[in-house]
Amino acid sequence: MGSVNQKALVILSGGQDSTTCLFWAIDRFGKDSVETLTFDYGQRHSIELTAASEVAMYAGVRNLVLPINTFQKIGGNALTDESIGVPNTVSNDELPATFVPGRNLIFLTFAAAYAWQRDICNLVTGVAQTDYSGYPDCRRATIDALEESLSLGLERRITIHTPLMNLSKKETVLLAKRLGAVDAMSLTHTCYNGRRPPCGECAACLLRARGFAEAGIPDPLTTA
Amino acid sequence: MGSVNQKALVILSGGQDSTTCLFWAIDRFGKDSVETLTFDYGQRHSIELTAASEVAMYAGVRNLVLPINTFQKIGGNALTDESIGVPNTVSNDELPATFVPGRNLIFLTFAAAYAWQRDICNLVTGVAQTDYSGYPDCRRATIDALEESLSLGLERRITIHTPLMNLSKKETVLLAKRLGAVDAMSLTHTCYNGRRPPCGECAACLLRARGFAEAGIPDPLTTA
Repeated sequence: MGSVNQKALVILSGGQDSTTCLFWAIDRFGKDSVETLTFDYGQRHSIELTAASEVAMYAGVRNLVLPINTFQKIGGNALTDESIGVPNTVSNDELPATFVPGRNLIFLTFAAAYAWQRDICNLVTGVAQTDYSGYPDCRRATIDALEESLSLGLERRITIHTPLMNLSKKETVLLAKRLGAVDAMSLTHTCYNGRRPPCGECAACLLRARGFAEAGIPDPLTTA
Repeated sequence: MGSVNQKALVILSGGQDSTTCLFWAIDRFGKDSVETLTFDYGQRHSIELTAASEVAMYAGVRNLVLPINTFQKIGGNALTDESIGVPNTVSNDELPATFVPGRNLIFLTFAAAYAWQRDICNLVTGVAQTDYSGYPDCRRATIDALEESLSLGLERRITIHTPLMNLSKKETVLLAKRLGAVDAMSLTHTCYNGRRPPCGECAACLLRARGFAEAGIPDPLTTA
């Protein structure tokens, strides 16, 4: 299905969602037209980088890790700041403590800058505006505006694909199954507490478990 | 003229344009409502950071330096990559070799993320679409689109002020004079070759000299 002029760069965190996106991109653009980009931005658990590398290797695509040392100096969030606790509950009423302001804007802008040099016009990201995140930079309206500013700022039409945008966790698991991505889930990392096997108690573990349960599919990460 | 709820963050490179913007912001928002942000992104000449610090101290405003170690890994431009020569001529026909794809997009997005944490809604940047740069991410249309994506992505109205956008270099010098910023120009750094006193031969030095000459004002950096 891929064509020679259609190349895609998948932002791969090593989690369930971005791994599903990688398989979506391979299905859409063809494996030889897909590469992946992972950010080493001071996340608390370097296990994420290992997971991304293993997933990319499993899928047979290139994986580049780009460092970002800026967020730590900006400070003030639970995913990079050891002094802030990670919440075990999810609320839609306010921004979660795991909010890194503008994180996805930065990720997508760096991805676009890297893609520019590699002649890639398609970016793929696993953000979703449904059911769980509450991050304003994960919404499609934000992504639409960003597509415009990136396209103008780089003088090249950039398309940001968000195949999970309107899917529930259950639907994401079903999509992974349809794409043959379920086996790869044994390599992914989701747990906010950085445990492997996962803690099963943090918000991320609970959401993941519920998605697999509702889809009626065993999670290879926890049922191996 | 500043009000208690109107705070501004100036992106200060330590050059002539951003220094003029700092004085513009002080005039517009009041000194106590202005702070500055400088990026340490692997530019070839750390003299820029010194200049920014000295300018901020001279103006009596806070200056934070944020590191960005990402561009060097993305590679391929003359301002951060030692293996690429700096051009001495300026052409409007193609992107100059000093183009760092998306650099201003990244700067403004990090600035907005930092401003978000400090309750600042106004960003000020010295980009200009007139006469010399050719960078697509310096154009007002790009900035307008970015304002929109930042405002949506951070859930807060962000305004990006570009007081130099449509000014020639001559007009920028005249603005600096009106704002009482000319003396501060002795602290600024412009030379692409990192020399102080400046080389007087690179494109940046030549443009600066022409601007001062056309404005009929001596440049305190070269005439001290």
